[in-house]
Amino acid sequence: MESVAVIGGGSWATALVKIISENKNPVKWWFRHAADVAHLQTYRHNARYLSGVTFDLQFVEPSTDLAAVIKQAKWVILAVPAAFVESVLQNLPADIFSGKFLVSAIKGMIPEKNCLVTEYLQTNFRVPMNQQCVIAGPCHAEEVALEKQSYLSIGALDKELAESFCALLRNRYVRATPVEDIYGIEYCAVMKNIIALACGIAHGLNYGDNFQAVMVSNAMQEIEAFLQAIHPGARNLSGSAYLGDLLVTAYSQFSRNRTFGNMVGRGYSVKSAQVEMNMIAEGYYAVKIIHELNKKLRVPMPITSAAYNILYERISPPIEIAILKEKFH
Amino acid sequence: MESVAVIGGGSWATALVKIISENKNPVKWWFRHAADVAHLQTYRHNARYLSGVTFDLQFVEPSTDLAAVIKQAKWVILAVPAAFVESVLQNLPADIFSGKFLVSAIKGMIPEKNCLVTEYLQTNFRVPMNQQCVIAGPCHAEEVALEKQSYLSIGALDKELAESFCALLRNRYVRATPVEDIYGIEYCAVMKNIIALACGIAHGLNYGDNFQAVMVSNAMQEIEAFLQAIHPGARNLSGSAYLGDLLVTAYSQFSRNRTFGNMVGRGYSVKSAQVEMNMIAEGYYAVKIIHELNKKLRVPMPITSAAYNILYERISPPIEIAILKEKFH
Repeated sequence: MESVAVIGGGSWATALVKIISENKNPVKWWFRHAADVAHLQTYRHNARYLSGVTFDLQFVEPSTDLAAVIKQAKWVILAVPAAFVESVLQNLPADIFSGKFLVSAIKGMIPEKNCLVTEYLQTNFRVPMNQQCVIAGPCHAEEVALEKQSYLSIGALDKELAESFCALLRNRYVRATPVEDIYGIEYCAVMKNIIALACGIAHGLNYGDNFQAVMVSNAMQEIEAFLQAIHPGARNLSGSAYLGDLLVTAYSQFSRNRTFGNMVGRGYSVKSAQVEMNMIAEGYYAVKIIHELNKKLRVPMPITSAAYNILYERISPPIEIAILKEKFH
Repeated sequence: MESVAVIGGGSWATALVKIISENKNPVKWWFRHAADVAHLQTYRHNARYLSGVTFDLQFVEPSTDLAAVIKQAKWVILAVPAAFVESVLQNLPADIFSGKFLVSAIKGMIPEKNCLVTEYLQTNFRVPMNQQCVIAGPCHAEEVALEKQSYLSIGALDKELAESFCALLRNRYVRATPVEDIYGIEYCAVMKNIIALACGIAHGLNYGDNFQAVMVSNAMQEIEAFLQAIHPGARNLSGSAYLGDLLVTAYSQFSRNRTFGNMVGRGYSVKSAQVEMNMIAEGYYAVKIIHELNKKLRVPMPITSAAYNILYERISPPIEIAILKEKFH
């Protein structure tokens, strides 16, 4: 049994705590608000996400003391939105992760810095890449809560490390597979949110299933070209960690990125869609970051460019998607 | 303007007649029943499929006289279920297609003979492969009826021939692209029905979106391996004609193959599901044919094998899918 810290109280964090604690690994679970800790201690479920999941408090200990949560753990899982990583970690000593294994469950990149979460941890906390993992889907947290058969891909440079983390996850309804392409799956997890957002925009404009299927096919080609430019190497993009992760997001009615895109396609301004949803979809930041990274790489990325033009350049969605549709094949 | 014969009165045939006749190409349209011809002549729509589509009878001439319909056309589009191809064509003279271009819009193979439609036409009617095309999606006929943006891939050995046929189709809401891999896209169109059927079975057993995304990812790998064994060659399976066609079927609530699989997953016998649906899904035959072809090739095809065991060997769906889920990654 291995000690695990989970940083973040959202639905994906909740699903991971369920899986790991049910395997009798002790989990220290960090929440921002003391009220959420008290609720969990009293009612044995997360007050705000997947509240149908009951936890065994023998294995789950919630806390607002971030440094204490991290110090006691061998594995530290980061599961806050990418935009909050810096503010959450800002007051920690630089050596806090020394000797620990870091696992990113974040499907986004650090805004302004335009870097992957793993790269951020390496630069700012001196966590070597060979002590890091990333968790990729395809996996809706909601289906984990219902114990529906799910698959996780664990990326790490060091296959043994990935395998060790897989062992913490595997159970009756979760299969976990190590993947050596840590950069590829981390970027793919980010880019899938852009595609889901773009699918949402098209749906909001009344494009149908035929168009969505072509969008996803073209997206796979766009993702492949970008990955080859930024981290060249052999990878089979039909794998679950790539295509599967994209499908579960792009075809989900529950995806926040797709929902956000749908509102933009229906004519909401970016600002009013964000206010209405009371949160910001990861894909919104991802569009800008990938677009900026691509200024150097200059890979043809018609879907990302269209999303960028709509979200950041205020080009009208009908015009931008009409241009995009001519580029698809 | 080019003369076109369309053989078959189903929804896909109806969508194609709409596209081609709207481009002012004269279409001779074969129906089995005189009542359907009379209905179309009186009311200007197909009595049974996509009846919201109105035809301009200046360009659409329905008939039950198959030989006459074919004789007057330069292009002959076959759009009947694969299982009926032999009976529909059986009384025609062997040279009827001489000098004509044949286009298969069929997403299935000839049962018993276990051959592609293009191969059947070559063997039985001496239509050379370089006078044949196949139409692949991704394309729901229903969305063509609604004039939603759609994409078609036209496969032919001869790229110029594919391009000529594309020219008959292109319009405001249809983009058509030539593809040289005629065998690959014809097999893929067949195999996607097997996958949609298997997705339906899993759905009927209450497997969720996470599982479906993994099924489709694994399916792409199964399709790629089979295509490499039966027709080796370079092809990008992320293309619309492959992945796109699979997605539009596997994620469709309207797919007859998925619906049939769903009933089987929920516990209907194969026979009662067929009776209830009042038709036989193409995927039901495709499972058997691909399974038989693979006896020689011996490609690992876990999804096709599971579907075969369920449909033809009466293995219980929960058992077969539980075995399958252990093979996925």
